[in-house]
Amino acid sequence: MKLYDSRVAPNARRVRMFLAEKGVSVPTVAVDLAKMEQKDEGFTALNPLQRIPVLVLDDGTAISESIAICRYFEETHPQPPLFGRDPMSRTLIEMWQRRVEFGLMTPIQLAFRHTHPAMREMETPQIPQLAEVNRPRALAFLQFLDAELAHRRFVAGDDFSVADITGYISVDFMKFARIALPDDLAHVRRWRDEVAARPSASA
Amino acid sequence: MKLYDSRVAPNARRVRMFLAEKGVSVPTVAVDLAKMEQKDEGFTALNPLQRIPVLVLDDGTAISESIAICRYFEETHPQPPLFGRDPMSRTLIEMWQRRVEFGLMTPIQLAFRHTHPAMREMETPQIPQLAEVNRPRALAFLQFLDAELAHRRFVAGDDFSVADITGYISVDFMKFARIALPDDLAHVRRWRDEVAARPSASA
Repeated sequence: MKLYDSRVAPNARRVRMFLAEKGVSVPTVAVDLAKMEQKDEGFTALNPLQRIPVLVLDDGTAISESIAICRYFEETHPQPPLFGRDPMSRTLIEMWQRRVEFGLMTPIQLAFRHTHPAMREMETPQIPQLAEVNRPRALAFLQFLDAELAHRRFVAGDDFSVADITGYISVDFMKFARIALPDDLAHVRRWRDEVAARPSASA
Repeated sequence: MKLYDSRVAPNARRVRMFLAEKGVSVPTVAVDLAKMEQKDEGFTALNPLQRIPVLVLDDGTAISESIAICRYFEETHPQPPLFGRDPMSRTLIEMWQRRVEFGLMTPIQLAFRHTHPAMREMETPQIPQLAEVNRPRALAFLQFLDAELAHRRFVAGDDFSVADITGYISVDFMKFARIALPDDLAHVRRWRDEVAARPSASA
C-alpha cells in the first residue's frame, strides 16, 4: 500500500491527519506539485484527473478523492469512528463534513488558487474577482460555525470527526489565502486551539 | 417527516431520485426559489445556509446537504444499497460520487449560475468568465467518463449507485448551462439512456 502525498496540499493533509487519528501508518510517495509531477504519465495513470492524494492498494487499485481514501480506512480500521458511530451521527457528520468543505474549505481554496503566484500555472485562468467574492463567504461561514460551536465541543457533535479535520485544516490554510481569523470568533478559536493540540494536527 | 423540495434544483432532484430507487415516499413541502423562499425566516431556521433540500425528521432534526439526506435513507432503508454493499464498493462509490460531483455537476452549475438571467439575484455577482472556463471542464470530464464507461455498465461499477444519480442529473441539467452532449461520447450516451429509462428518472 502506498499513499501519493504532498506536504503543501490541504486535501493530502486531510488524509494524513485522518490516518494519525486512526493510528495507521502508510508509506508515502511525495508528489512535487511545484514541478507539476501530478501531470506525469505515471501519476496520470493512477488518477487521470491529476490530483493528489491517491492511495494505491497492494492489488493495484488506485483510490483518489481524500474523503474516499478516509472512508476506506474507516472501513478497514473502524476504531475510533470518524464518520459516526450510529445512523444519526453518520448522517450529521456527512452533513457537517460537506457544509465545512463547501462553505469554508472551497472558498478559502478559491481565494488562494485565484490569487497566489505559485498557482499561476495550475489554476488557469486565475480570476482575482473569484478570490474577492470568496473571502467574505469564508468569513460568513465562520460566523455561522461560531454560533454552532457555542453549543457543542466539535463541529458535528460531542465526538471528534472527519468534519473537524476538514474544518481545522481549512482554518489553518486561511493564511495562504490572506484571510485572518477574526478575534471575536471565540468559539471557533476555542475549537481551533483544541484541535491544534491533538498529535494528529502535525501529521 | 417532511422534505423541503424544489422542482428546479438538481440537488433536490438527487434526493427525489434516490428515494424513488429506494421505494420510499416522503411528504414534500415546495420551496419557491424564484420567490427566494429559501431566505424566509422559517426556512432559515431549518437551514441557516438557506439551501434546499432539507429533510425534517419527526423529532424536529433538520438535515441539509442532499448527500447527507441520501445517507440517512441508506441507513434507515438499506435495500437496495446505493452507497455500496461492501468496503471496496463503498470506497469506489464515494470516489466516483465525488469525482462526478466536482468534475461534472459543479462546472455545469457554475456555467448555469453565472450566466442564466434567472440566477441574477441568487448568484451575486455573476462572473461570466467563470461559465466560460467551466464549460470545457465539464466536457473534458465527460470525455474521461466516456472512456471509463466503455468498460462497465454504471459510473462506479456493475451496480447502479448514487454516483449514477449525481451523473445523470448533471448531464440532464447541461441544457440550462448551454452545454450540448457531444455526439461522439457513445458510452456516456448509452449509460445516460439506460438511466433515463429507470422510473426514478422522472421522480
